[in-house]
Amino acid sequence: MITFDEAYKNVLQHTLDLGTESVELLKCNGRILAEDILADRDFPPFDRATKDGIAINYAAIARGVTGFRIEAVVSAGMPQQKLNDTNNCMEIMTGAVVPENADTVIMYEHLDIKGGNATLRREVTKGQDIHRKGSDVILGTVLLNKNIPIGAAEIGVLAAVGKSEVMVKKLPKVCAISTGNELVEVAETPLPHQIRKSNTISLFAALQKQYIGAERVHLQDDKEAIRKELTHILRTYDVVLLSGGVSKGKFDFIPEVMESLRVKKVFHRVAQRPGKPFWFGIQEAQKTVVFSFPGNPVSTFANYHIYFLPWLHKSLGLKQQKKEVLLEESIEIKPPLTRFIQVKTQNKKGAVLATQVRENGSGDLTSLAHSDGFICLRPRENTYEKGEHVAFISTRS
Amino acid sequence: MITFDEAYKNVLQHTLDLGTESVELLKCNGRILAEDILADRDFPPFDRATKDGIAINYAAIARGVTGFRIEAVVSAGMPQQKLNDTNNCMEIMTGAVVPENADTVIMYEHLDIKGGNATLRREVTKGQDIHRKGSDVILGTVLLNKNIPIGAAEIGVLAAVGKSEVMVKKLPKVCAISTGNELVEVAETPLPHQIRKSNTISLFAALQKQYIGAERVHLQDDKEAIRKELTHILRTYDVVLLSGGVSKGKFDFIPEVMESLRVKKVFHRVAQRPGKPFWFGIQEAQKTVVFSFPGNPVSTFANYHIYFLPWLHKSLGLKQQKKEVLLEESIEIKPPLTRFIQVKTQNKKGAVLATQVRENGSGDLTSLAHSDGFICLRPRENTYEKGEHVAFISTRS
Repeated sequence: MITFDEAYKNVLQHTLDLGTESVELLKCNGRILAEDILADRDFPPFDRATKDGIAINYAAIARGVTGFRIEAVVSAGMPQQKLNDTNNCMEIMTGAVVPENADTVIMYEHLDIKGGNATLRREVTKGQDIHRKGSDVILGTVLLNKNIPIGAAEIGVLAAVGKSEVMVKKLPKVCAISTGNELVEVAETPLPHQIRKSNTISLFAALQKQYIGAERVHLQDDKEAIRKELTHILRTYDVVLLSGGVSKGKFDFIPEVMESLRVKKVFHRVAQRPGKPFWFGIQEAQKTVVFSFPGNPVSTFANYHIYFLPWLHKSLGLKQQKKEVLLEESIEIKPPLTRFIQVKTQNKKGAVLATQVRENGSGDLTSLAHSDGFICLRPRENTYEKGEHVAFISTRS
Repeated sequence: MITFDEAYKNVLQHTLDLGTESVELLKCNGRILAEDILADRDFPPFDRATKDGIAINYAAIARGVTGFRIEAVVSAGMPQQKLNDTNNCMEIMTGAVVPENADTVIMYEHLDIKGGNATLRREVTKGQDIHRKGSDVILGTVLLNKNIPIGAAEIGVLAAVGKSEVMVKKLPKVCAISTGNELVEVAETPLPHQIRKSNTISLFAALQKQYIGAERVHLQDDKEAIRKELTHILRTYDVVLLSGGVSKGKFDFIPEVMESLRVKKVFHRVAQRPGKPFWFGIQEAQKTVVFSFPGNPVSTFANYHIYFLPWLHKSLGLKQQKKEVLLEESIEIKPPLTRFIQVKTQNKKGAVLATQVRENGSGDLTSLAHSDGFICLRPRENTYEKGEHVAFISTRS
């Protein structure tokens, strides 16, 4: 049995390089950017009016002109126009190109317009209300660095520079496997000694939030059948997430079968609760990583978030984001296990407060629905005090 | 012009009742639950062994028995067995039904097993290591209340109670419209006076995160074409999100066309920056809600998160979650506008700290990619001080 910190370190030492792929812009939401994005032109690409009004040549004002004949109307989407007489003006709309020979924009609110003439009502500053070409960024500037998650804001930037296809990190092919003869399908009515599958369905949903469409497989407790299925699965997938079959029972064949399929055990059993009988291994030739979680719902759910998500994020090149929360009540734990305790969090005056969710052992599925995540309490003799900050693993993001 | 608080209140007074629909379990991730979920049986549904070992009748120990002949092996998924002789035991695996006549489980680690007999190595407590029928929940208990978002944990609960189809809130049909003759498609190379569409693409991506597949439409600055398209759109969609066309320019036809199509203006222009020329209206006969945002990227993105998301969440029956962050630096603003300032947040020792993101006016798309959201600073004379907690609107969740 190893400590939680050793187990965590070991898992993160076995990340995979998943490669990259090109994806349509509107399908890359949530994916991880795999290329630096440069400005393909200056932004704005031209001197752009930021108000509706008129464009003038400021020198006219210096010459004492206060009324301007309107030569034409310029709207957004029109090629650059030319102000023929610098004593005149052009009406101009927000987003339009400032005409040649004009250098200043004056908004309608500061003008009187009558009979094709605009008269100034306020003082004017040279160059006002123009968003200058290249003032946001110049051609070639790095706008987005690779290895960041792509959200709506990034998609806006990608659109602006014409990336209709984007290089993103490939996601791992994941197979989520449930084991156990007691399990029946969700749509079935279980007999008194049976229960419905919920672990792999919950994993499937959690993986969906990572934009991974996992395969779900169920294995009966039959050593030969398990060996045969796993042989195929190890060849086909990058990651295998198992739930159940790793305890000390007579039908817990997984560790034995894994070793026979040359999946090297990295560790088995971690000094933590829940989730102690966690088996982690790697098939080096096939580059398949195996997370074999204990079969009860809280343990599987906890270890998925504690180990698999950081593994995934590191494999994708993302920085690990550490979060901490403040305890709303003191908690006493007994060494030597690291405890993962379900909490509900609340944002209050800029602090994140965590309240323990009462749960009924590791079989209690409903407690997970009342929690936002787990706090991680490493073993120590003295009490974790109210107001203390502790590490937090979100199950909601 | 109305204040931000008035505008916000007005928007939330015009929510829609979108109704409910039945969705397959594996497709309801992220949706809002529209029915209370009850336990369809006791959980656990039977007295369940929580360890691998043997099941005995405790009375035997009271009679002085310390060695037990193994009658049979019971594994998970087997119907309940019967211990024939209460001086004997049955080997039992985690998850199996405790046999008739047995009431206590002893784990392998506390036993010596040899020649078909198990001998006790430790003291035993009556009833130990059994997860009792109904001890988590009893038949009929409410496990999940309606009006909550469905995540992986909730999907686990739904699976456990056999909900292969789930009643969820319907999502609104949304049309995101861009306007402006200067806009070209992402895949096109714009001429010097043109720019690529990015606002509706960014909105499309933001709506995807709400599980809404929006329609995108572009309208040229042509009053009759706009009127014709909008007539159709108002009939077809629940929500119209417009970007551009609501300023004071000659080609800003939207307010006029809206009123001609009997979209009642609720307000136009809000004392805020960015996002001031926001037009909000409702077509009462068709129950269509119109959010007409100013055309620049920061304004559209800000108002989507400030107004549309709370509107959506209230329409779906979700509670509004208020968030606050702590300022990392003092900020001075000038009345009378409510300011929405882009910030990057950081979780540190249980507090959420916000640092201002330097931006270059409301046309600066890239600043949004460096931010996690906007802080909301209502107009006031004295400085917002470092360490003060202020309202925060996330653009990342």
